[in-house]
Amino acid sequence: MTLKNIELEKAIKIINESVNPINSMENIKLKDGIGRILSKDYYADIDNPPFDRSPLDGFALRSIDTLKANKDNPIDFKVIDTVYAGNVSNLELGKNECIRIMTGAKMPLGSDCVIRLEDVVEENNSVKIDISLSQHENYVFKGEDIEKGDLLIEKNTKLNSVHLGILGSMGKGNIEVFKKPKIGILGTGDELIPYNKQLTDGKIYDTNGTMIGGRLKELGYEHQIIETSKDDPYIVGDTILDNINNFDLILTTGGVSVGDKDIFHDVIDIINGDQKFWKVKIKPGTPVMYSLVKGKPILSLSGNPFAALTTFELLGRPLISKLCKDETIKPKKVTGILENEFPKDSLKMRRFVRCLYKEGKVYLPESDHSSGKMLSMIDCNGILDMKKGMKNLKTKDEIEVFLL
Amino acid sequence: MTLKNIELEKAIKIINESVNPINSMENIKLKDGIGRILSKDYYADIDNPPFDRSPLDGFALRSIDTLKANKDNPIDFKVIDTVYAGNVSNLELGKNECIRIMTGAKMPLGSDCVIRLEDVVEENNSVKIDISLSQHENYVFKGEDIEKGDLLIEKNTKLNSVHLGILGSMGKGNIEVFKKPKIGILGTGDELIPYNKQLTDGKIYDTNGTMIGGRLKELGYEHQIIETSKDDPYIVGDTILDNINNFDLILTTGGVSVGDKDIFHDVIDIINGDQKFWKVKIKPGTPVMYSLVKGKPILSLSGNPFAALTTFELLGRPLISKLCKDETIKPKKVTGILENEFPKDSLKMRRFVRCLYKEGKVYLPESDHSSGKMLSMIDCNGILDMKKGMKNLKTKDEIEVFLL
Repeated sequence: MTLKNIELEKAIKIINESVNPINSMENIKLKDGIGRILSKDYYADIDNPPFDRSPLDGFALRSIDTLKANKDNPIDFKVIDTVYAGNVSNLELGKNECIRIMTGAKMPLGSDCVIRLEDVVEENNSVKIDISLSQHENYVFKGEDIEKGDLLIEKNTKLNSVHLGILGSMGKGNIEVFKKPKIGILGTGDELIPYNKQLTDGKIYDTNGTMIGGRLKELGYEHQIIETSKDDPYIVGDTILDNINNFDLILTTGGVSVGDKDIFHDVIDIINGDQKFWKVKIKPGTPVMYSLVKGKPILSLSGNPFAALTTFELLGRPLISKLCKDETIKPKKVTGILENEFPKDSLKMRRFVRCLYKEGKVYLPESDHSSGKMLSMIDCNGILDMKKGMKNLKTKDEIEVFLL
Repeated sequence: MTLKNIELEKAIKIINESVNPINSMENIKLKDGIGRILSKDYYADIDNPPFDRSPLDGFALRSIDTLKANKDNPIDFKVIDTVYAGNVSNLELGKNECIRIMTGAKMPLGSDCVIRLEDVVEENNSVKIDISLSQHENYVFKGEDIEKGDLLIEKNTKLNSVHLGILGSMGKGNIEVFKKPKIGILGTGDELIPYNKQLTDGKIYDTNGTMIGGRLKELGYEHQIIETSKDDPYIVGDTILDNINNFDLILTTGGVSVGDKDIFHDVIDIINGDQKFWKVKIKPGTPVMYSLVKGKPILSLSGNPFAALTTFELLGRPLISKLCKDETIKPKKVTGILENEFPKDSLKMRRFVRCLYKEGKVYLPESDHSSGKMLSMIDCNGILDMKKGMKNLKTKDEIEVFLL
């Protein structure tokens, strides 16, 4: 049964309850891991660093031998070896002996501190030390950063460059992640003609696929365009049936309003889809529709570009977040102080308005706020949430904003 | 001549003055435009919308015919045609005539307003109208969003999904952009061994390439790893000479400190490079080096992961911003209030500390702040700028943060 005219929060709940997250996994190279979702917890197999090491260039020695060293009583240490990062010394330090050591090299046997290169005078295989060092001064312990057995990164984490560094420090050249979603975009509308063709009377260029596809890319997701011919519910229905098994999600644009050419009601009917809801109490984008076809989610956005983008942000992002277990793309809400007036009301319907949010302040574009105005959206990074029943918004009003 | 021990701002200035932006252009599909930099101004070739149109489903008519309409005096209008989006009506409206019109369809000849479907009663090819409409009520003018000749998007703009929508609405299926940069990453360090191999004594896994490469990807840029064998300045120099013509920028890690194995001074010398600076007065990452080889920039970061990441943020981002004319990746500075204490000093050297910035507040990771600690960086989104000469930082201090 289709629910009609529901609240946004109810629509999100229905989406969350009906979308099955992708559970298939794959093994990929660590270097390709940015933006992917880990499919298991990762624990430390080894300590990091894997051995006690020097944090700087200097001389490794026994702190006990420097106990009495001071400016008036410099002590001579014999340099018995040099150890570079990546090498080890086979010698064990005795009394008043030291080993030249480079940053990152393993601490030699017997040493418990490092004096920095700049703090000694080196001469003829010997250094003069005139300060007293404490035990483990300039000394990095094995496992100081990561201890073997530590939980490093939890399952369902979306990987960033720091995660890659951590997994890399464990030698994980390959990692287990969930498969990427296959997202299709299908546009309808007899008024649309493709790019690079001459406009004819009454037609406009088809931008929704490019724009929503671009938005997906910004969020880190790929897509494929599903081509269909004309606004005939049987043709569009067949196209969906032909493709549904190859996709995890299909986004459609156009054909969801109440006009004679708003074919999506028929489409979903014809292909035995389960229309979950139609019409959400928000403006723009009211006629958004959500269905399951063979268990796969189909989110049908209206054909108006601003409406399509708004409903994609408010409903498409939670959907993909659930599908991909990607917490990072959930819409984020912040509170800000409005710096302009907004003369339109939301008496009948909750209204969303593009805005710029910057350090707690919210600015509206100069021009008016018709939902078709693309140019005014260029500098926007948020959508202002104007709750139902308001007459207008005034400067200094405290308002909520969804960040894009 | 190499400048040594310079301020961060001076280092950025040297980079800005020496990097030549990429000026080669290419023609790409609009749908592949996300993150690309426009190589020319784009003006509107056509009006958008390209014709006067209806913003809703209803009936187009002449407002003058509704002047006397009210609840007590409904007026009958004859429905003489229906026009869908994408089609046009060939008829011209006469007195008390109307045309059924769908959202987005071209306004018929003679009409100057639209009454919404919900506001009329339709019966036998006739509608009863009991309200008076004003001229251009529910009427969208040709060019209302974008007027032919308008400057749409300026040269050097990094394209996002809204830009794609705007260019798409003009029918631009292809666009002119600057070529992507070719960025190479070359790691040195005899202590490093590749992933998936067993660690031997004194060795660690090589993570810098993966991490810096991942960071580039997060910023929207690809890279290639340049393989080299061991820490020999002649071998590394040859590798750079073999590759320099294929790259716009080479990032290196390791070998820039003062130890015997810090080969990059020799490398740049051997291949007749122009070492612009070495050592910047910041911690971590002090020994960062910057050179030009055959006119191409080489930024040499230190081998310590946190230091490499920090100097990449502070110097690598401005460099790539200049190279690619990408204003969006310049480091962004905000001011915040510190919520923790920080016990270390910056008496001798300006210090950068990873932190979390959230709505004006700044949090430091719980653990200590050794520059090797990767785990503590997971939740950080900024780097706190602790100016030279401070003893420590206290809760409620106002501080500056570079956002990652």
